[in-house]
Amino acid sequence: MSANPTTVTKPLESVQLYPAVRKGFGAIRFGVIGYGYWGPNVVRNLHSIADAEVVSVCDKSSSSRKRAHKSHPSIYVSADAQEVITSPEIDAVAIITPVWTHFELAKAALENGKHIFVEKPFTSNVAQAEELIELAKRRNLKIMVDYTFLFTGAVKKIKQLLGEDHLGKLYYYDSTRVNLGLFQHDINVIWDLAPHDLSIMDYLIGSNPEGLVATGQRHLNGFEDVAFITLYFPENIIAHVNVNWLSPVKVRTTLIGGEKRMLVWNDLEADEKVKIYDRGVDITNREGVYELLVNYRSGDMWAPQLEQVEALRQELTYFVDCMINDRDPINDGAAGLRVVKILEGANKSLKKRGALVYL
Amino acid sequence: MSANPTTVTKPLESVQLYPAVRKGFGAIRFGVIGYGYWGPNVVRNLHSIADAEVVSVCDKSSSSRKRAHKSHPSIYVSADAQEVITSPEIDAVAIITPVWTHFELAKAALENGKHIFVEKPFTSNVAQAEELIELAKRRNLKIMVDYTFLFTGAVKKIKQLLGEDHLGKLYYYDSTRVNLGLFQHDINVIWDLAPHDLSIMDYLIGSNPEGLVATGQRHLNGFEDVAFITLYFPENIIAHVNVNWLSPVKVRTTLIGGEKRMLVWNDLEADEKVKIYDRGVDITNREGVYELLVNYRSGDMWAPQLEQVEALRQELTYFVDCMINDRDPINDGAAGLRVVKILEGANKSLKKRGALVYL
Amino acid sequence: MSANPTTVTKPLESVQLYPAVRKGFGAIRFGVIGYGYWGPNVVRNLHSIADAEVVSVCDKSSSSRKRAHKSHPSIYVSADAQEVITSPEIDAVAIITPVWTHFELAKAALENGKHIFVEKPFTSNVAQAEELIELAKRRNLKIMVDYTFLFTGAVKKIKQLLGEDHLGKLYYYDSTRVNLGLFQHDINVIWDLAPHDLSIMDYLIGSNPEGLVATGQRHLNGFEDVAFITLYFPENIIAHVNVNWLSPVKVRTTLIGGEKRMLVWNDLEADEKVKIYDRGVDITNREGVYELLVNYRSGDMWAPQLEQVEALRQELTYFVDCMINDRDPINDGAAGLRVVKILEGANKSLKKRGALVYL
Amino acid sequence: MSANPTTVTKPLESVQLYPAVRKGFGAIRFGVIGYGYWGPNVVRNLHSIADAEVVSVCDKSSSSRKRAHKSHPSIYVSADAQEVITSPEIDAVAIITPVWTHFELAKAALENGKHIFVEKPFTSNVAQAEELIELAKRRNLKIMVDYTFLFTGAVKKIKQLLGEDHLGKLYYYDSTRVNLGLFQHDINVIWDLAPHDLSIMDYLIGSNPEGLVATGQRHLNGFEDVAFITLYFPENIIAHVNVNWLSPVKVRTTLIGGEKRMLVWNDLEADEKVKIYDRGVDITNREGVYELLVNYRSGDMWAPQLEQVEALRQELTYFVDCMINDRDPINDGAAGLRVVKILEGANKSLKKRGALVYL
Repeated sequence: MSANPTTVTKPLESVQLYPAVRKGFGAIRFGVIGYGYWGPNVVRNLHSIADAEVVSVCDKSSSSRKRAHKSHPSIYVSADAQEVITSPEIDAVAIITPVWTHFELAKAALENGKHIFVEKPFTSNVAQAEELIELAKRRNLKIMVDYTFLFTGAVKKIKQLLGEDHLGKLYYYDSTRVNLGLFQHDINVIWDLAPHDLSIMDYLIGSNPEGLVATGQRHLNGFEDVAFITLYFPENIIAHVNVNWLSPVKVRTTLIGGEKRMLVWNDLEADEKVKIYDRGVDITNREGVYELLVNYRSGDMWAPQLEQVEALRQELTYFVDCMINDRDPINDGAAGLRVVKILEGANKSLKKRGALVYL
Repeated sequence: MSANPTTVTKPLESVQLYPAVRKGFGAIRFGVIGYGYWGPNVVRNLHSIADAEVVSVCDKSSSSRKRAHKSHPSIYVSADAQEVITSPEIDAVAIITPVWTHFELAKAALENGKHIFVEKPFTSNVAQAEELIELAKRRNLKIMVDYTFLFTGAVKKIKQLLGEDHLGKLYYYDSTRVNLGLFQHDINVIWDLAPHDLSIMDYLIGSNPEGLVATGQRHLNGFEDVAFITLYFPENIIAHVNVNWLSPVKVRTTLIGGEKRMLVWNDLEADEKVKIYDRGVDITNREGVYELLVNYRSGDMWAPQLEQVEALRQELTYFVDCMINDRDPINDGAAGLRVVKILEGANKSLKKRGALVYL
Repeated sequence: MSANPTTVTKPLESVQLYPAVRKGFGAIRFGVIGYGYWGPNVVRNLHSIADAEVVSVCDKSSSSRKRAHKSHPSIYVSADAQEVITSPEIDAVAIITPVWTHFELAKAALENGKHIFVEKPFTSNVAQAEELIELAKRRNLKIMVDYTFLFTGAVKKIKQLLGEDHLGKLYYYDSTRVNLGLFQHDINVIWDLAPHDLSIMDYLIGSNPEGLVATGQRHLNGFEDVAFITLYFPENIIAHVNVNWLSPVKVRTTLIGGEKRMLVWNDLEADEKVKIYDRGVDITNREGVYELLVNYRSGDMWAPQLEQVEALRQELTYFVDCMINDRDPINDGAAGLRVVKILEGANKSLKKRGALVYL
Repeated sequence: MSANPTTVTKPLESVQLYPAVRKGFGAIRFGVIGYGYWGPNVVRNLHSIADAEVVSVCDKSSSSRKRAHKSHPSIYVSADAQEVITSPEIDAVAIITPVWTHFELAKAALENGKHIFVEKPFTSNVAQAEELIELAKRRNLKIMVDYTFLFTGAVKKIKQLLGEDHLGKLYYYDSTRVNLGLFQHDINVIWDLAPHDLSIMDYLIGSNPEGLVATGQRHLNGFEDVAFITLYFPENIIAHVNVNWLSPVKVRTTLIGGEKRMLVWNDLEADEKVKIYDRGVDITNREGVYELLVNYRSGDMWAPQLEQVEALRQELTYFVDCMINDRDPINDGAAGLRVVKILEGANKSLKKRGALVYL
């Protein structure tokens, strides 16, 4: 296919979630920048997709380059990101590097006519995200932010349950993501761990928070290692995120409470990650009395079988499809911006030890 | 013994934690006001203590009075709290009623020369608590606030571990106390559930928070049913309390992180409620570099056997001992006041959707 | 009512599972023999049943008699079982004593015209059980063996699911009941723990095992403290019971596998004791090949809400109803005999280190 | 190195558990027969070992051969096992095929002077195992049976604890290994799942069972899919293995009880796989009474950190070392034979529905 696949007219019949991508046009040619912890997974998955091809991999570390070459002898390995960004052989660039490098690399890639797949969080601040979105729009290029979790069986099932109004009016979203390390040396625990929760929450709740309050504490290297965010959404929905690099145990649990039912998602369970409880509250008016009576209601629990998928493979297949069929992904630049806005707000609130910040 | 046992000179040899109380003086005579959910436990336990005697029980509800009489035919049952408070036959009054009634009952009891055992939270506001403390001091009477948890095997073991510096410098205290209901109709979820966490935290950390931030949301009856409190302590200790009346599952978990070790207390486990993890972080200075390196360290886990006690029985035995030997309990009026101060601050912060409130 | 309530004509309209027992005839008058660990629960529950009344309690131990008197000052307490058994004031005798005493006490009670409620296991051997059944039949008296578990929410729900063919054709029943202690000094671990499993299994499977194999080992006091029973039922159903007094952890788990669905009952879970898995196997014939292909099938899990009941209270209410309305309980003498037959067979097999014993 | 590395004299200083293998002799050259489920792991791990080299891979299935070639383009791939077995380029053959093929392949390999690494169970019967051991002895060749579990952090730690007499005199070993599928079409569930338990048990207990009793049932394809084995060891140690292809949940739990302490190994836990309980029993003689009193004793629990290793890599490194230094592995042909003897005995017992079989 040509370097600019987006000029292909989008056929109507392809507007389906994950259509089989068209064969015979040649694959989308990828350059991957960053081959540290996550990059190898991106390369391996792109490799397995029919309509994608990894042309070159780039990393500043020579040991990473050696690993890349050993695993993929056929891929060109380079230390120079510019080489990848400017190559006419490349249609799309995957940027799997620390967040402070995203903007510069992404901007250069877009300016060179490449679609971009960017590790989360999208950028270091709101202004950068807005500039990239604007640039991609002008050049008719796609941005996908790597929100892998949106493509897991668990999140898909929860989204479906919410869509079918299984939970009723939402009350709260409460997520805990704690473990021992890994410490980051350039960002705090909110920027490291919370993007998972915030991107999932953004996708599931489907509206923008009005404001937030973030609290936390630094103990070791000048960055908050324990932190808590409260987010106020319209219609009295409240969300809360608990992130911690200093927990002796790993926890990945989200509670979602609705008027009709409630849900617990424990991502560390082998089976039964998502449990739906037929529990809730009923409000009654006591006769002749102003006071409301709240009674709780108990019932069955149900753990739906979840789709067994490699989420990253699905996400990248979807990205390839979006490029070929000129569609905007759900995890596009705007989705990336929404999370960066919250992260920026959280830092503002943290600095004032928990001030209310309107978004 | 006389109606004013505190005039008894305190013998030096009795200054031990739970001394066998002196025999032969006659028991401390109790009146118990409130025979709803918790009152029967107080009466039953007082009954089983050698140096205590329940003389009368009082409740406004006739069905509660009937239950009291059926279980304890020998105890005088009354509908009139005044009768209890003014009775010359009574040395101490246990006030097991809703929080908004505490001040009036406690004040009257103290003015009538009775020691008081008061359900938590101590009072509805700081001014009330201060007035009661002052009054008790003047009359040389004892106040105990019912912080039953301080007398459980789990909290005692954790206190001991902290005292022996097993955890090293404290980093954080993070408690989650959520379940479905019971809804209170006069107070929010913080005033209902958090006093447990706040009194335990106060006891274990042993210093006063400098400020707090509380966030939450009301969904049903005009009181917050989901809420989160962050507390800032000196020396960078941060505490967090997550309380929720709308959770489909019951959680009672506290994480305590220190420099040397970390601890998880899951109060719902049948055995192994407290687990100590030989995990932590080491900070090193990379040679010739300003940047700090944080490495985490992993090791064994250890679940100490906990003392099997009926905590309420121990607490009431201790109260009797404090009266007889004129000693101030650890859960005295001042301890009650410290928690009320936080609760009052939390309400202030909640009203501003999470403002920082200095304590 | 008269001392022989079974002559009362059974009204047709009362043939329902737990009918409200008829009022106004006077209650069934009980004598309870044995006030050790379980006896107090029997007395307390009988007390709370409208149509029952405990007239006397008997125990050889003076401390047990003191406890009985303290808790129930109105009940006549005696050291002499004969007094209870021969009293004209008593309609039914509850025998809550060690198994080796059951036969003699039960026989005397029946001979004195009393209905009997007997702790499990029913008797020490098959001959005794058969004699008691015969005797009760001749005297038109009721026998109930205390299989409390049949009246729990969990077992009722499983029985209902099996009745509605939720699991399909049964494959196996596999139960584990292990913990540390309590050691019995007159019987082995099979006679101590397995009667629970065997009575539940008998009720749920609803057919008689054809044979069994029991293995085990003695380590401490001359009785097997670790043992395993395999039971062969018709139609290829296999059952297995694992009992152990030397386990560091307590386990109460039963797996039941059927052609259509499978079930796990973990009695130690606070909620979600029973989980039904939409999992199973499909057998297909490979085309043109004799060999069968077995594929497994995976699906949702479902934890039904269970009835919250005090099982012992329901069982005793049901016993009272059976006496008043002349009905045979599901846990009658014949049910008691079926379990004793298995226990006797297990001992035979154990002696030969695991011989197949036909029942 | 030469095709017969075993003539190398074993230096005394190399008698250590996993010595760094000698460099510079050239690697042991492997041929791998069978590239289905487990074969790829063997090839991948051999690849990563300095002193090993995979020269050729053989599989009858063309799709398996394609997978092998795609993952390891440099390895020669063949459909003909004879080619591997007779190749002068090969020092050792790994046989990762169904059990009924082991004997023929292993015999041919040994006859061609190759060391062999054989998937468990070693052979289909005792006679075959004995013939292979004899043959290897005559030819001075090594046999290793693939008991990967012996090289896990969990089993190593348990072996160490037993060696240091942490548990005291052993009472019992009770293992449960159940899950849904995978069904085998040539062997029953005992031959499929129990070799894990039996090889671990053999290693940990360190003595031979005197007899066994096996029970089970066939429901689907003519092979037992649910089965139970009891094994009698000297000194009153009893072992039990519960294997099941029809369980809705996966269980991998072993309880080991000793006089001083008890242990639970749950292999499905992410952390804390092995928990040691300071629990046990004390036997006392009641004064003047013959009867023994058994009291149980409760204490702390402790979960040691386990070595994080890829067990298969360690096992293969050890095999290479055994060949180079002419040492007999702990999981040699004799270890393979011991398990086959039990499996053969189990089948004999199963046929008689649970007869006692002496070993």
